[in-house]
This record gives sequence, structure tokens and C-alpha cells, in this order.
Amino acid sequence: MSQPMNITALSIGGALIASLALAQGDPLAGAVAARHAHMDLYAFNLGVLGGMAQGAVAYDAGAATAAADNLVALASINQTNYWLPGTESGAVEGSRTKVELWSAMDDLTARQAALVDAAAAMQAGAGTDLVSLQAAMGPLGSACGACHMAYRVPN
Amino acid sequence: MSQPMNITALSIGGALIASLALAQGDPLAGAVAARHAHMDLYAFNLGVLGGMAQGAVAYDAGAATAAADNLVALASINQTNYWLPGTESGAVEGSRTKVELWSAMDDLTARQAALVDAAAAMQAGAGTDLVSLQAAMGPLGSACGACHMAYRVPN
Repeated sequence: MSQPMNITALSIGGALIASLALAQGDPLAGAVAARHAHMDLYAFNLGVLGGMAQGAVAYDAGAATAAADNLVALASINQTNYWLPGTESGAVEGSRTKVELWSAMDDLTARQAALVDAAAAMQAGAGTDLVSLQAAMGPLGSACGACHMAYRVPN
Repeated sequence: MSQPMNITALSIGGALIASLALAQGDPLAGAVAARHAHMDLYAFNLGVLGGMAQGAVAYDAGAATAAADNLVALASINQTNYWLPGTESGAVEGSRTKVELWSAMDDLTARQAALVDAAAAMQAGAGTDLVSLQAAMGPLGSACGACHMAYRVPN
């Protein structure tokens, strides 16, 4: 089975079809799309927590814990294949990433580690009570914003 | 801090702003958007593996392992908040989910567990060699397709 595998086997899942388009069609656009999808999932899970923190949604320890668990899982995702050189703002439609990011990988790694820490703190607090959830929200927002402010072109 | 927290603290990260829109604007549309983002990330990581499996991209044990690790992490994400009742095809724009899904949660759980198993098998094979990666690709595609065929409206 060292020859290219039968495409039929790959086409069972619609996701696979899309994935092959991403991988083989335009890798740079695919990488930017993956970044946006990843950010959307951060946003969705943060939204669950933010809605509770603001009092717009009733506190629910189980839902809050699930959202916090998911943030930790998302923050642990290996993003090497997302941040391809040549995908900065202006080079790929929809990208808002400053080109400076690619010469600041050590700083990016440190900020990513800070996000993991903030998500872990939320994971510890989210299921405890609303006050603990609220206390973890600010540092989590700051950890998100630290990368955005440094490496994202303002709207 | 039991009163609604200061919105300024939440607005540091752009993602948080989007998240609050998702959570407070239209929860059903937000849930569908989160599902699509999640599927996009499956697709992206599958694309890395599929490109290698097909011979379109040179086999790279590190990149393949990262993609497989990510699939396991994504499959472990708690999706309870994504699959809200009332988000079936026809009820929310862009949704292709059959309404039957909401009366088949045990089956869905089983299919999800099968996906985790298939992703774990890919995780075991992806870093070994191309033949092992290719061998894990079919079952992984089948696990994706099992849910799509049962619970997704055809295009």
C-alpha cells in the first residue's frame, strides 16, 4: 500500500473531501481558515463562560467545566501547520496576522504557554462557583489579548 | 464580584467579543458555527494526513504525528454545547444536521467513541511510517463518514 491510496476510501467522509481541498488546493488559504476555525472554537467556549460571568446565562457548573476543559484541549492543539510563513495580512485574504509574528517565535511560544496556564486556571475555577469563574475570566481574556495586541492587525 | 463583571476586562481579546456575540446574540447560530469550526479543524488535520497518504505531500513523521495528536484532542472536545436542540437543517441557516440526531444520542455517543478509537489508531501509526499512516486512514475516514451518512443531510 505504498502507492497512493484509493481516493474512494478517502471520500467517505465529507470532511475528508474538504480536507484534501485544503491540503492540496491552496495550503496557505487552508492554514488561515484553520486558524480562524480554531479562534472560533476558543470564542464559542469563552462565550459559554463569558455569558455566565456577565450574568446573562445562569451559572451551570457542568457546562462551565466542559467549556473550560475544551479551552485547555484547544490550547494544547499543535498549531505548527496553521502558522505557515507567507500567510500574513495582505498575503492571504482574511489574514490579520502581522508579519512580525514569524520573527518572534520564542515570544509566541511564551504567550501560548501563558494561555495554557490561564485556561488551566479557568479549568480549576469554572466548576467551583460563579465567583471563581469570574475571577479566572480576566486573566484568560488578557492571555487572549496579549497575542492579539502584539501580532494581529487592528480592524 | 458576584455582579456582572466589567465588560472592559472582557473586551481585551477580540475573540472574547466574538464569543459574547455568539453566546448572547443567537445561541443557535453560534452552536452551528462552532460545529462547522470543529469540522474545519478535523478537515485541516485530516488534510495533512490525507496529503501524505495520497503521495501529494512528502511523508513527515513529525507533521503527521502533530496532525494525529490534534485529531485525538479534537475528538475529545466536549460537544454538548454545540448540538443544541433546535439547530437541525431547516431551523438554522447552514445546518445540515438531520433532526433524527436528537433522538439517537446513544448511537451518536457510540459513533463518537469509534472516532476517538480511529484517531488513536492514527496517532499510533502516523509517526511510524507511511504505510502505517495509510493503513489508519481508511478506518478514520469511515468513522467520520459513519456520522455523516446517518445524521447529515446530503448536499
